[in-house]
Amino acid sequence: MMKVYDFTGSGNGYKTWLLLQQLGLPYERVECDILKGETRTPAFLKKNPNGRIPTLELDDGTFLFESGAILWYLAEGTPFAPASRLERAQTLQWMFFEQYSHEPYIAVARFWKHFFDRLTPQQEATLPDIMKKGYAALDVMERQLAENDFFVGGRYGLADIALYAYTHVAHEGEFDLARYPAINAWLARVASQPGHVTISHKH
Amino acid sequence: MMKVYDFTGSGNGYKTWLLLQQLGLPYERVECDILKGETRTPAFLKKNPNGRIPTLELDDGTFLFESGAILWYLAEGTPFAPASRLERAQTLQWMFFEQYSHEPYIAVARFWKHFFDRLTPQQEATLPDIMKKGYAALDVMERQLAENDFFVGGRYGLADIALYAYTHVAHEGEFDLARYPAINAWLARVASQPGHVTISHKH
Repeated sequence: MMKVYDFTGSGNGYKTWLLLQQLGLPYERVECDILKGETRTPAFLKKNPNGRIPTLELDDGTFLFESGAILWYLAEGTPFAPASRLERAQTLQWMFFEQYSHEPYIAVARFWKHFFDRLTPQQEATLPDIMKKGYAALDVMERQLAENDFFVGGRYGLADIALYAYTHVAHEGEFDLARYPAINAWLARVASQPGHVTISHKH
Repeated sequence: MMKVYDFTGSGNGYKTWLLLQQLGLPYERVECDILKGETRTPAFLKKNPNGRIPTLELDDGTFLFESGAILWYLAEGTPFAPASRLERAQTLQWMFFEQYSHEPYIAVARFWKHFFDRLTPQQEATLPDIMKKGYAALDVMERQLAENDFFVGGRYGLADIALYAYTHVAHEGEFDLARYPAINAWLARVASQPGHVTISHKH
């Protein structure tokens, strides 16, 4: 049976978990407390040299890391991954956008505010820039969703899962989503998909 | 004919350019000076709402952004993109690693030191952390390349193109590559591929 190395509350881990639920695939879950350094031990670095969750262990002992790569591996050949060359590339476009222009701001602001009692002086100094870039990512999403029900091809798929994960908990990083009607309508559409589970129901 | 919106000196743009050379595909290049804000104009934001290069315009007027998505679109069905489910996911794994754990440090240090005369006080304050995380990414690469000639499946492909782009100019960000023998051997293997062009030969 596949194993997923995960950390409760992680949006990147949640992406994998949500897809596994929607695909109905059995797996064993291994909790790794990143706050205690459990992904930076020599044993864990043999599984994932980059020391992060989620990490997927296949039946043959092969390890796969990076949430985007795990999502594609699991979804290949299912309705969650498009079949056409253009829609596959568009799905990747939004998944790379999420990891480069969205997660480093929206997830980081949430991580600091949700998992720690107070910010360090350096975090306080960086926060305005983080919030500004997070809102810039939300602006890009709003623009796309004002004209599209889902990110790619008019259907729910991997790009939606990837972007939903940290957007639906952006308020935990004190982002104000009230100004984004198209994002809110899309959040509701994603939450109404068969088999949907929110991050707060995790574990 | 396809159009590529690009900026001279960008490693993300170079990835697209290198693959286009190696595939022998004709295209028209449009220079956009990011330092003058040419990717943040209303006209450019209609092409790419995230306001970045590279952006690819297909013959039918469809726009595709994010270097990783463009690479997959161009390479699909060629020897540069693996065919097997696992090797495709492993390729994505290294491409997401590059965009999340490598480029934000190695490319950013290079950008600051290569394109500007001096750093701002905030850049100076952030630089030690940027250098530390850049070296951490190089450590992960060294570990993989100590046992593998290329990143995936023992063959040159998209993962190598994605990671080569900013690694081969990491010294311009004052990263010392001398301590990484496996990376240096891999850089030479990549540079010896048919049709290879370095970023310094660009334009």
